[in-house]
Amino acid sequence: MKYRYSNRIEKAKASAIREILKMMNDPEMISFGGGNPAVETFPIESLKNISSRLFEESPTKVLEYGITEGDIDLRQEALQFFSNKEDIKKEYDQVLITSGSQQIMDFIAKVLCNEDDKVICENPSFLGALNAFKSNGATLVGCDIEADGINLEQVEKALQSDVKPAFIYTIPNFQNPTGITMSYEKRKKLYELACKYEVPILEDNPYGDLRFEGQAIPSIKSMDEEGIVIYAASLSKIIAPGMRVAMLLAHQDIVGKVTVAKQSNDVHSNAWSQKVMANFLHETDMAEHLKKLQAVYSRKCALMLSKMEECFDEAVSWTIPEGGMFIWVTLPDTISMLEFVQEAIKNKVAVVPGNAFYSDDSIPCQSFRMNFSMPSDENIIKGVEILGTLSKQMNK
Amino acid sequence: MKYRYSNRIEKAKASAIREILKMMNDPEMISFGGGNPAVETFPIESLKNISSRLFEESPTKVLEYGITEGDIDLRQEALQFFSNKEDIKKEYDQVLITSGSQQIMDFIAKVLCNEDDKVICENPSFLGALNAFKSNGATLVGCDIEADGINLEQVEKALQSDVKPAFIYTIPNFQNPTGITMSYEKRKKLYELACKYEVPILEDNPYGDLRFEGQAIPSIKSMDEEGIVIYAASLSKIIAPGMRVAMLLAHQDIVGKVTVAKQSNDVHSNAWSQKVMANFLHETDMAEHLKKLQAVYSRKCALMLSKMEECFDEAVSWTIPEGGMFIWVTLPDTISMLEFVQEAIKNKVAVVPGNAFYSDDSIPCQSFRMNFSMPSDENIIKGVEILGTLSKQMNK
Repeated sequence: MKYRYSNRIEKAKASAIREILKMMNDPEMISFGGGNPAVETFPIESLKNISSRLFEESPTKVLEYGITEGDIDLRQEALQFFSNKEDIKKEYDQVLITSGSQQIMDFIAKVLCNEDDKVICENPSFLGALNAFKSNGATLVGCDIEADGINLEQVEKALQSDVKPAFIYTIPNFQNPTGITMSYEKRKKLYELACKYEVPILEDNPYGDLRFEGQAIPSIKSMDEEGIVIYAASLSKIIAPGMRVAMLLAHQDIVGKVTVAKQSNDVHSNAWSQKVMANFLHETDMAEHLKKLQAVYSRKCALMLSKMEECFDEAVSWTIPEGGMFIWVTLPDTISMLEFVQEAIKNKVAVVPGNAFYSDDSIPCQSFRMNFSMPSDENIIKGVEILGTLSKQMNK
Repeated sequence: MKYRYSNRIEKAKASAIREILKMMNDPEMISFGGGNPAVETFPIESLKNISSRLFEESPTKVLEYGITEGDIDLRQEALQFFSNKEDIKKEYDQVLITSGSQQIMDFIAKVLCNEDDKVICENPSFLGALNAFKSNGATLVGCDIEADGINLEQVEKALQSDVKPAFIYTIPNFQNPTGITMSYEKRKKLYELACKYEVPILEDNPYGDLRFEGQAIPSIKSMDEEGIVIYAASLSKIIAPGMRVAMLLAHQDIVGKVTVAKQSNDVHSNAWSQKVMANFLHETDMAEHLKKLQAVYSRKCALMLSKMEECFDEAVSWTIPEGGMFIWVTLPDTISMLEFVQEAIKNKVAVVPGNAFYSDDSIPCQSFRMNFSMPSDENIIKGVEILGTLSKQMNK
């Protein structure tokens, strides 16, 4: 039979990254394309021991239905961990545990967007979030990202639109895909703009604890006194992504609506992973754990950057992240970016074409995204050498 | 600030069952209100051993990102298990693993419904599904459920509507909340109607393997030659619900769209639980496992029914299920159902008021739902005695 699909799902599309990920199944492919954390940082022994203990001591608790808001212990432990450096919880706020922070993007759009409502986002931005917004019927309004974060003139122009946008989406720390961090001044001004126009901010902070250079900058959530900032934090990048555990922190009214959305979706997140995470956070010296993690990310990023410096054609430029997982590389106009990415894949190195991250992916783009957390040191060296040779060959 | 929510989320609401579940936290409450499987049937030892083995042998596989469609081994094992009794997979079909079958309800509505599209459903029906449809903007068209299943005249009338409904939702086996099973004849006719009007059927079968009486009836999916039936199967009721593992089987075009929806939601289901389930299905004699399970459910159901026969006022009537978890009880007009439920709760017995399961919950309803899988034998006896006394006291 011929199926008729909803308008909103026709707006979304399969992720270009997923197509790249499929190619990564080629065992010979060196992948700088993924967004996966470094496998060598997974605290396997701890997680294994906690899991065994749970099965010994309270097996039905990890196998029975739970409540939608999330395991009580995990809500407490996650909030405590994520607010240990700054005061992010206001008295009107509530916590909800989700199956990865991607789920927060979907639910917030579902709860706040009617069909064709506008969502203001950084241009480029995280493809998964953009697709989640579109799959809920939203239309994206992209604002350029600059060295210190989103272009605020463009944001204000978008906020002045006749129909009020549903929300503003931002990744202030080590943004995906650019690796750029928003300055303190811009965070403050963005918050003031949001208050002035009464449009909520969805602050997505999956990488905040992966800082290996410079000083931490306060989150926009920590500045908020109006309940205007919806905050998404995740354990995927700092413990393990397959666990699918993240935390939404927002005004209790918003959390109430998201609870209805989650109840209709997966009822609650996996019971076992919530209990394991609660115990892990409780008994781990997280400062120590993060220090080890940051050392790995710092080393890998430095290795990739130094090899790029050594091998890439001098007409190629890139961002220098202070944390996170990504470097954003821009080719000179003499090289077609899409041809470059295709040639790279033929030479068994995968990177993600930059246009995939734009609110309108048909606009010409000279950039691509490179991930340094997932590949081994050996593959970083080998892969950058191949890309470097290509950049010199193609810059003619 | 004042939040503005989407129209679709305003249509949905917090589940009445959840409010009941909250009261069940009262340790003195005897709950017939839940929809939880019998905890004593959880295969704890097997799951524990499989989990330990996975952590020993391939820990990164249970901690790393996976693909949206689901773990390859689990897709194979789940399909094999669910199609061992009848041929449900057609060559054009594909499998997708979801985080519980509730997620299938949400995604199918997201993918097939525009705002205000109609969804035909049984009246009463599973509240979680109805809320999922509403939260995606759908308007419900309830068709009465009779002793042999949905009223087909009402279905055809709904199908003849000017605007084609998005899909038909049915739970043919031991329906939630009524316990009713749709006859073979009605399944066939419902399928023919769906084909005639070219409207897909979403066949939800979470309880099919919990049959403890009578002969299994072929699923509507097994009759389908047109790709018109979307099939939802779940491991929640037959292994453990906290694992959140279910299976969607449908035409590859539908699965492709649902994959986009899932990718935007939780990226993929929990990696650990998928691997554990794949191994459990692979190494367990499932026929033997189900036999033990069915014996428990049969015994509990018979106990509840015989106590009801003994204790309830003779003006009270109820369904006699051949499987599943629920009995649907109808009070005489002399008793206000809502007052009865409130009195029951005061007497520390929880049941779910029937109007919660109707597409329009403001219509008067004389029925309530009782669950026999979750309470202990002792509580079944004690709780039914309390309800029985109440029914006699209130029938004046």
